[in-house]
Amino acid sequence: MSTTPGFGDRLARAVAARESQVVLGLDPDPARIGEGAAGASEFCTRVIMAAAPACVAVKPQLAWFERLGSAGWDALERVATLAAELGLLVIADAKRGDVAVTSGAYADALLRAPFDAVTVNPLLGTDAVTPFVTAARATGRGLFVLVRTSNPGAGDLQDLRLADGSPWYESVARLVAAWGAAGVGSSGMSDVGAVVGATAPHHLAVLRELMPHQPFLIPGVGAQGGRPEDLGAAFAGTRAAAVVAASRSILYAADPRVAAEALRAQLWDVSG
Amino acid sequence: MSTTPGFGDRLARAVAARESQVVLGLDPDPARIGEGAAGASEFCTRVIMAAAPACVAVKPQLAWFERLGSAGWDALERVATLAAELGLLVIADAKRGDVAVTSGAYADALLRAPFDAVTVNPLLGTDAVTPFVTAARATGRGLFVLVRTSNPGAGDLQDLRLADGSPWYESVARLVAAWGAAGVGSSGMSDVGAVVGATAPHHLAVLRELMPHQPFLIPGVGAQGGRPEDLGAAFAGTRAAAVVAASRSILYAADPRVAAEALRAQLWDVSG
Repeated sequence: MSTTPGFGDRLARAVAARESQVVLGLDPDPARIGEGAAGASEFCTRVIMAAAPACVAVKPQLAWFERLGSAGWDALERVATLAAELGLLVIADAKRGDVAVTSGAYADALLRAPFDAVTVNPLLGTDAVTPFVTAARATGRGLFVLVRTSNPGAGDLQDLRLADGSPWYESVARLVAAWGAAGVGSSGMSDVGAVVGATAPHHLAVLRELMPHQPFLIPGVGAQGGRPEDLGAAFAGTRAAAVVAASRSILYAADPRVAAEALRAQLWDVSG
Repeated sequence: MSTTPGFGDRLARAVAARESQVVLGLDPDPARIGEGAAGASEFCTRVIMAAAPACVAVKPQLAWFERLGSAGWDALERVATLAAELGLLVIADAKRGDVAVTSGAYADALLRAPFDAVTVNPLLGTDAVTPFVTAARATGRGLFVLVRTSNPGAGDLQDLRLADGSPWYESVARLVAAWGAAGVGSSGMSDVGAVVGATAPHHLAVLRELMPHQPFLIPGVGAQGGRPEDLGAAFAGTRAAAVVAASRSILYAADPRVAAEALRAQLWDVSG
């Protein structure tokens, strides 16, 4: 038996220790900061150094690094390593998902130091997600599986009504709960979490009911319009039941430290 | 007005010129060929040189390169460039899909030389796919959007029945047809295609009807169990209406050239 604590417990411990549910999204957009891997790395370093005290994790969005080729990959590695050294969890926002053998290769790529968790796209079903679960669980790492996203077109396919009247994404939620069932730690939180957007908060209560042990990763606060005060149902009184990602509203704030601390205080309030 | 031919027409021209619908899947698995970027690059180079005469395209599976970090990214670039120099189209099998601004960053990363097309995951809906369509169309490149995949768990979510009795993936198909409507070339083929697995051939006829202008990218032949002789409905008599990806059955064949040529001849027969 491994004595590595599971990711759900690691997340719960980190939230308690840092008194924060803020996930700093790292989306270094060249339209804002100029082109190049060196610039992206410097920009992320500066924001991480400023905002870290108010955060529990960083969430690098892989697209912004991938578009810089191999230099971008090195920059991602540097930035993630810095965050880990500062005591932050690192969630690779990759949204990968493929046939089983390929998901295994993605798990190799992304479920390793300095990454603690990865976002996963569930479209291909159980055999496509299982390699991520296995790789994560073996090393105390975690997943956040897309259940209901925060973008304007999220409903085009995710909200389609099934024969029984339920929206399609609730079927995803049931699968996610099943995938995470064997990974629930002593904190009550599983190593398989769910991505649930902040922009449709009326979904949160039913999703919390369908996935009682899943930590939620909630994007869409700030620039996308989601409001911290609407997220109470995601926590249901458990501090570590959800972490909330903000990117542009912290990255490009006049003072990232102040913006992150304001969000931290709001969320701590809502979750108690 | 741009005079760049659209991807649908480029694909149709390539299929006619090479008399092939074979897409060589490049999945350099370290369990088969040993670990490291140099080995992956050499392996892919050797197979491409051998099989190219029987193929119309290569499809590097990004996971296998991504797991090698920045050296893997460079290896991918080299391998794709070689294939392009040999006159093959290059389809980046990335299955990316994210909120609009992030999809734009992925499009930057993958819709550029040496890549001619990219596979896209539609889960996040129209605003998430639009940046890929725009970027592809502007440069004569293309997309293949996941509609019904070839893996055992494909049905877990894709086949769920909607209120009207239709499977969920048919709604994806309708969206894909809409996304591709403005990109149909003189060949009748659009720059927005569809990934449709070979392992459930009874889906092909209805999907061909729902997506009359979409080139199909069909994985799942060979190692996954799909059979070329079952794919007639995908072509519906049009040679360039589908291209068929085979990876392990060519890569690890005793003679990749012979394996690719056998598949080429079978498909040419079925599609006529």
